[in-house]
Amino acid sequence: MVDFSDVQRAASVLDGVAHKTPVLTSKTANEKFGAQLYFKCENFQRAGAFKFRGAYFALSQLSEDQRTRGVLTYSSGNHAQALALAGKLFGVQIVVIMPSDAPALKVAATKGYGAEVILYDRDETSREALGSQISAERGLTVIPPYDHVDIVAGQGTVAKELIEKVGELDYLMVCAGGGGLLSGSSLSAKKVSPNCKVIGVEPEAGDDICRSFRSGQLETCHNPETIADGARTPSASELTFSIIKQNVFDMLSVTDSTLIACTKFYAERMKIIVEPTGCLSLAALWENQLDVAGKKVGVIISGGNVDLATLAEFWNS
Amino acid sequence: MVDFSDVQRAASVLDGVAHKTPVLTSKTANEKFGAQLYFKCENFQRAGAFKFRGAYFALSQLSEDQRTRGVLTYSSGNHAQALALAGKLFGVQIVVIMPSDAPALKVAATKGYGAEVILYDRDETSREALGSQISAERGLTVIPPYDHVDIVAGQGTVAKELIEKVGELDYLMVCAGGGGLLSGSSLSAKKVSPNCKVIGVEPEAGDDICRSFRSGQLETCHNPETIADGARTPSASELTFSIIKQNVFDMLSVTDSTLIACTKFYAERMKIIVEPTGCLSLAALWENQLDVAGKKVGVIISGGNVDLATLAEFWNS
Repeated sequence: MVDFSDVQRAASVLDGVAHKTPVLTSKTANEKFGAQLYFKCENFQRAGAFKFRGAYFALSQLSEDQRTRGVLTYSSGNHAQALALAGKLFGVQIVVIMPSDAPALKVAATKGYGAEVILYDRDETSREALGSQISAERGLTVIPPYDHVDIVAGQGTVAKELIEKVGELDYLMVCAGGGGLLSGSSLSAKKVSPNCKVIGVEPEAGDDICRSFRSGQLETCHNPETIADGARTPSASELTFSIIKQNVFDMLSVTDSTLIACTKFYAERMKIIVEPTGCLSLAALWENQLDVAGKKVGVIISGGNVDLATLAEFWNS
Repeated sequence: MVDFSDVQRAASVLDGVAHKTPVLTSKTANEKFGAQLYFKCENFQRAGAFKFRGAYFALSQLSEDQRTRGVLTYSSGNHAQALALAGKLFGVQIVVIMPSDAPALKVAATKGYGAEVILYDRDETSREALGSQISAERGLTVIPPYDHVDIVAGQGTVAKELIEKVGELDYLMVCAGGGGLLSGSSLSAKKVSPNCKVIGVEPEAGDDICRSFRSGQLETCHNPETIADGARTPSASELTFSIIKQNVFDMLSVTDSTLIACTKFYAERMKIIVEPTGCLSLAALWENQLDVAGKKVGVIISGGNVDLATLAEFWNS
C-alpha cells in the first residue's frame, strides 16, 4: 500500500528536479464564485503536466538491473511524455504504447524525448494485454500510468506543495482519469489539511469513478467520447479506487462544453493554456455543482498539453 | 526628472497592491538560444499588463483635489485598463480616449472597470489635442501612457523585481512602445545590475525609437501597421527618450510574423498567453539578432491582453 510517508519520500526525491509550480489567483474567478481560489499550475510542470512527478519517482525506485533492461508503459499521452523525459534524465530506455488517436503533439513530444512509441488501435486491442506481451518478450519493467504505488506517491506531492504554500483548504478540486492524481492528492490533503473535502471531477462520458464511488465497486467505461483525452481511461485501478473510496469526499462529472468554456476562461482571463483534461477541476465549479461561497478552494490544473489548432477550433465554435 | 529612488518609492507604494508576477524558465528556450532565459510574466499582472504599476503609482501621487476632479488619459488599451482599474481602487473617475480600432477586449475591459471611453479616429485626430481639449473643459488631470515621471518610475519596478529575484543579468530584453517600460527598466538595471545591457525591441513598422536611437533625436511613425498594437505609438517622449539614450545599450526591430511565431511558442511550450506586443522582447532573440550564447538574459513579457479569436487566426495562418 501507499501512505503519506511515501508522498514525503517522493517529495524529497523530486526536490530540485520537478518544478515547484506557481500558484495563481484570479480576482475574476474569486468574484464569480464568491470564494478564494488557488490554482496549482501543473501545466507549468516539466513535460507540461503533473505526470512527471510520479514518473520520475517511480524510475528512481528501480534497481540498477531494471533500469538497464528498460521500462514500458501505456498512456494516452502525458504519462508517456513524462516517463520519456524521466527516462532521458536517468538514461533508461522507455517504450510507450499509445492509442493511434492520441494528440499529435503528445506523440511527437514523447518521441522527442527519445522514447520508442508503439501505436495501437483503441477499439481492437487492450493496452494492458499488448503491454504485458511486449514487456515479457523484451524483459522490460512495466510502469503503468496510475496503477502503481510510486506513481500515486509522486502525484501526491502536488497537493502537498499547494497546501503547504497557501495553508489549509476547505475544498480541493482534482481532475480524475485513472485516479493517480486524485488518490495521491487525497492522501496529502488528509494529512496536511485534515478538514479539506477532496472532490474528484471526471468528464460526463468517462464517469467510471463517479459510478464506482456510488456503487462501491470498480465500474468501467469503454472508450468514452470526450475531449478530455487524459480521462479516457477505462477505469480506476483497485489501488487508486481503494484510496479514493476512503479519502475522497465526492465525485462529480462535467460536460465537454463546460471544459471548452474553461479553456477560454483560463486563456482570456488568467493568460494560461490548459488542456481540456486540466479544466475538469474548475469545470465542476463552473457548473455550480458545489456551493463554495466564502470557502478557500484549491483547484489543481493537471496539464497544458494541447494542440493549438485544437484550441483554436474550440474558441471558434 | 526621474531616477532609481523614484522607482524605489513606486515599489513601496505598489507593495501588496500590484502582483509580484512569476518568473518562468523554459528548458526548450534555453536550449534553443544556448542561454539562461528568465521570463518576467507581466501578462499575469493585474489588468493583464505591466501598465497597472505606473497607473497606480501615478494616481497615488495626485492631490485630494485632483482625485476628486478626475483623470483623463489616451491609450491604445493596456494603460487605459490599468488606469481604469487603479481609478476604481482609488475611487477616481477616469476618462479614456481610445482609437476606434482598439481591440474589442480592451475597450470592454476598460468600460468594465467603470471608466468613460471616448473613441476617436486614429487617421483624423491627434489624441493629445483631443485630450487637452476635454481635460481643459472638465478640469481633469491628464496622466498620459508614458510621458510622465511617475509612470516611468512605476514601470521601472518590473526590472527591479526581476533582477532582485534572479540576480544580475547580462542582457535585459524589453518591449518598447512609447518607452515607459523601457526607460524605467533601464533605470533599474543600471542600479541593480550595472553590467546588464538593456535592449529595447520595437515592431519593424513602428521603429521610431530605433531610428531616434541612431539619429540622436526624436523620430516619429504615423499610424504604423503592426499587430503589436501596444507599440503603435507615434514616438517616444522627450522624457522617455532622454533616459533611453543614456541607459539603453541598443534598439532592435522585429517583423510581425516573428511575433506570431512567438505567440505560438509561448502557448505551445510555455503554456502562457502573450499578446503580440508582449512578444517583442523574445522576438529579437528569435530572429538571432543578438548573440546571447552562454549569457543570462531577462525577457520582459509586457502583457497578455489579446482576443482569443485573433490568436486563433494567427495560429491557423
